[in-house]
Amino acid sequence: MTTPDDDARPGTEDPTHWVLSLSCPDRPGIVAAVAGMLAAHGGNIEESQQFGDPLSGLFFMRVQVAATAPEADLRAALGELGERFGMTWELDVAGRRMRTVVMVSTAAHCLHDLLFRQQSEALPVDIVAVVSNHTALADVAAFYGIPFHHVPVTRDTKQQAEARLLELVEETGAELVVLARYMQILSDELCRTLTGRVINIHHSFLPSFKGARPYAQAHDRGVKLIGATAHYVTGDLDEGPIIEQDVERVDHSKRVEDLVALGQDVERRALARAVRWHAEHRVLLDGHRTIVFR
Amino acid sequence: MTTPDDDARPGTEDPTHWVLSLSCPDRPGIVAAVAGMLAAHGGNIEESQQFGDPLSGLFFMRVQVAATAPEADLRAALGELGERFGMTWELDVAGRRMRTVVMVSTAAHCLHDLLFRQQSEALPVDIVAVVSNHTALADVAAFYGIPFHHVPVTRDTKQQAEARLLELVEETGAELVVLARYMQILSDELCRTLTGRVINIHHSFLPSFKGARPYAQAHDRGVKLIGATAHYVTGDLDEGPIIEQDVERVDHSKRVEDLVALGQDVERRALARAVRWHAEHRVLLDGHRTIVFR
Amino acid sequence: MTTPDDDARPGTEDPTHWVLSLSCPDRPGIVAAVAGMLAAHGGNIEESQQFGDPLSGLFFMRVQVAATAPEADLRAALGELGERFGMTWELDVAGRRMRTVVMVSTAAHCLHDLLFRQQSEALPVDIVAVVSNHTALADVAAFYGIPFHHVPVTRDTKQQAEARLLELVEETGAELVVLARYMQILSDELCRTLTGRVINIHHSFLPSFKGARPYAQAHDRGVKLIGATAHYVTGDLDEGPIIEQDVERVDHSKRVEDLVALGQDVERRALARAVRWHAEHRVLLDGHRTIVFR
Amino acid sequence: MTTPDDDARPGTEDPTHWVLSLSCPDRPGIVAAVAGMLAAHGGNIEESQQFGDPLSGLFFMRVQVAATAPEADLRAALGELGERFGMTWELDVAGRRMRTVVMVSTAAHCLHDLLFRQQSEALPVDIVAVVSNHTALADVAAFYGIPFHHVPVTRDTKQQAEARLLELVEETGAELVVLARYMQILSDELCRTLTGRVINIHHSFLPSFKGARPYAQAHDRGVKLIGATAHYVTGDLDEGPIIEQDVERVDHSKRVEDLVALGQDVERRALARAVRWHAEHRVLLDGHRTIVFR
Repeated sequence: MTTPDDDARPGTEDPTHWVLSLSCPDRPGIVAAVAGMLAAHGGNIEESQQFGDPLSGLFFMRVQVAATAPEADLRAALGELGERFGMTWELDVAGRRMRTVVMVSTAAHCLHDLLFRQQSEALPVDIVAVVSNHTALADVAAFYGIPFHHVPVTRDTKQQAEARLLELVEETGAELVVLARYMQILSDELCRTLTGRVINIHHSFLPSFKGARPYAQAHDRGVKLIGATAHYVTGDLDEGPIIEQDVERVDHSKRVEDLVALGQDVERRALARAVRWHAEHRVLLDGHRTIVFR
Repeated sequence: MTTPDDDARPGTEDPTHWVLSLSCPDRPGIVAAVAGMLAAHGGNIEESQQFGDPLSGLFFMRVQVAATAPEADLRAALGELGERFGMTWELDVAGRRMRTVVMVSTAAHCLHDLLFRQQSEALPVDIVAVVSNHTALADVAAFYGIPFHHVPVTRDTKQQAEARLLELVEETGAELVVLARYMQILSDELCRTLTGRVINIHHSFLPSFKGARPYAQAHDRGVKLIGATAHYVTGDLDEGPIIEQDVERVDHSKRVEDLVALGQDVERRALARAVRWHAEHRVLLDGHRTIVFR
Repeated sequence: MTTPDDDARPGTEDPTHWVLSLSCPDRPGIVAAVAGMLAAHGGNIEESQQFGDPLSGLFFMRVQVAATAPEADLRAALGELGERFGMTWELDVAGRRMRTVVMVSTAAHCLHDLLFRQQSEALPVDIVAVVSNHTALADVAAFYGIPFHHVPVTRDTKQQAEARLLELVEETGAELVVLARYMQILSDELCRTLTGRVINIHHSFLPSFKGARPYAQAHDRGVKLIGATAHYVTGDLDEGPIIEQDVERVDHSKRVEDLVALGQDVERRALARAVRWHAEHRVLLDGHRTIVFR
Repeated sequence: MTTPDDDARPGTEDPTHWVLSLSCPDRPGIVAAVAGMLAAHGGNIEESQQFGDPLSGLFFMRVQVAATAPEADLRAALGELGERFGMTWELDVAGRRMRTVVMVSTAAHCLHDLLFRQQSEALPVDIVAVVSNHTALADVAAFYGIPFHHVPVTRDTKQQAEARLLELVEETGAELVVLARYMQILSDELCRTLTGRVINIHHSFLPSFKGARPYAQAHDRGVKLIGATAHYVTGDLDEGPIIEQDVERVDHSKRVEDLVALGQDVERRALARAVRWHAEHRVLLDGHRTIVFR
């Protein structure tokens, strides 16, 4: 009998490093089938994580694999597997920078942080546009050489503004939209159109302090830790699937403005992690919860 | 002119170490008056913290002082100061063990932890009774040589049960009641009677996940950190002033029962800190918020 | 062609949940071979993690799998795989309690914690003996119904004491020895005999503050965080492979005895995690470093 | 008898908010004397912290006070108190921005962070110059409108380079020098000249991994947490008084370059806190340790 890995001779040319992420209904044999297919294509698994959710009955997997086989062959084989197991799958070159639009209003800390991390190669994204309903942060975008688009929003122009945003997403080929303290609520329709592709940072430890002025709410409640939550945006405000949360200790002496200042650190930390994990295909949706293969 | 500290000659006898905690409407001269009075009584301030809350207009202070003056003199002088400034004050011997009743149901982790910390001198409390609506933890109390009182509670006997609890509090001279995962809601009346003297541990990061089964709620929401909150008990369920909060990182692979197990560590940590700070007079009430001089 | 998972029909009987952990020189096809073999034995992979260390050239894998095949068949198939890939492997029933000896001197906090966690099922170990060079903790062992062995150690009797310890390990069939603040240094010979089976908790954030009185050293250096390190014991004191570390914030007001008290929390937390991960076969040795599949 | 606070009538003009920090040999009456003097000058204490170190026998105090008295009067009174108690004291306007020189080499993360925090008012410093032995970060300084000085250093020019640095410190009136990943060792002489005024960020959890390439050392040792340490610079490399430390969890899968990237977050966090506390006069030296009134 020929075992799958007998064919797995490393080629002479340099292999490509791939990230494969997938989900499907759980059943025996998935890992064997995926690993067998990869081995049959000369793949060497470098990193791999699996999780079967007993509640949803779904199976999730992320594999980083070095392979010499042509991309078309891999995709064809994956297509077959996908049919057999009812899989949703995605294949991407490991480390490829995901095309990203960042939306902001006037708060600069998250934008600065994302741009700096992109430049210093700590974040595998390619920020193709900064979009804002204000002009305050145009110079920050300019410093990093990123096109800045001013798209003002009033009650009457919201629809046009969102149309313009969608246009920008299409023109730039953006795969991801990051709301980096963008202080406008997206319409249900836009949320649906971009589902799973918009990450927001909420400045509280959700589900505590939904809605407006979370630091004022936190101060009023007298909490001893403040937090931030990065989540996918859905039509249900502040209820989207959570990707990452973090907290910072505070005490009675901190005023609302101190919480705001301290919170900026937590916000940018949580957001940067969520964006990185998303760009590295580490985040998979499991209903209204996320699987994060860190 | 004779400055206050000219009188502050250390006596030949060993000084007593006192903790003075106080609050009053904020105005100039409070610290000077308190420190002056202490110096006039031969006091050496070893540790001191102050805070003026601009919102409530209240001033809070905690002083640890070594003094040779007789207690009666100190109390008399404090009485005068208190009148002048409209102070609420408390004077206690530093390190004195606060008489404490612990109430439990069937979960053992917080009780074990409190008893162990008391025994190892890490917690300045003297646990004078363990009260439970079950008998499951009688042997734990027995191991530490603490009287165990079984006070069952049904809908019909709740009033008598609370009467019995109050009796126990009086008989034992308990100053503090700790609800260490006691799964009964105290009546409004009892909350009022014991106001500021009952600490509860809630197994969530309040105000998230109030009410029953917080870990199931947290799991359902897909949070990435679970928490626990130690707070004073008021008639308003899960709304009492927060003393301490802590969190622990979790991920998608954790089931509700895993969260429960992981949460035990956070609960006992947060509760132990809250009890210690209360017993050391580090916690002062500022409306529905707490000042914690850590 | 018959693909492996065609055979993977869940049997009518309940499957056994296994943990398989393995390491071998890295090469393509390992995951495929392991997953294929498991699928061929009716295995459903529930959880799985892999890591290839580019430095050591070794590959590590931990799989949790539900399978109906008889144990002997699984072991035979693993034996073949092991030969082919030069694997070190271990197959265990998931959740089986690992037989464990705990060694202590006079500090009670880690012992209490381990015994309580064992009893509350939070720690999959079966503590078969408590061994101590003192008698101070005999009653703690008694409370939990665990045999206590007093094995005094002096310079002259060290050899006999270690012989007695080895005897106890053999008699009880202990797989793991936990030094829960055992204040004696094991001989090189004993370290070698029990290599990879002895976990120690060191009361500092190694490699800072090796040797004696780490909290006094930490206080003297004025550090702002204190820590604890759980590690495998080797002949090289405080240099064994690190399994887990944790820290706690401190400030200038803390005396050495305060650090000791605060440190107890960090110690028991880090030790409990390390013991749990070891007992769940989540820790694999990679030279003088550890792979921890959390 | 006229008590001190009888004079403490708030003036009609707006009071100035002062920060007073002091240390002196511990003895009874210090707080009373300071608070009495402040009250006599119409001062209202807004925040205050004290600490008496039993080891060094020194007493430390930081007071934030609102007062209407002229600065000269306050300073005269403090001068008298200082003589009487052998005090070192400093009086500064609360929130005043401390004039600061930042020194860098090629790593941008700490510089970016400090400049952004300064601009967003989260850091009470006025960065008057960026000095570097490279030119790589000139544009970052330019973006924030800060003068950039290229002062190359070779073995032969080190003395001149340090002379130039001192010149810049004098010309700009800098009170603080921050080594924000400046990869040159300052001479003993310069350390002495600027003692207590130079803060460095070391990219390890000191005293672990002193010297060069701490992340490589940490990786090799297999630690589970990496850290950073902000400390005052002394002639004794990596041995200066620690101001702040922080850590971040890592695991076996992280390569040295991953640790470097993750460490950037910890470094900038620890450094920003240390600089803020120093600028707010919250850090006092107690021998080779620091008192930090957070």
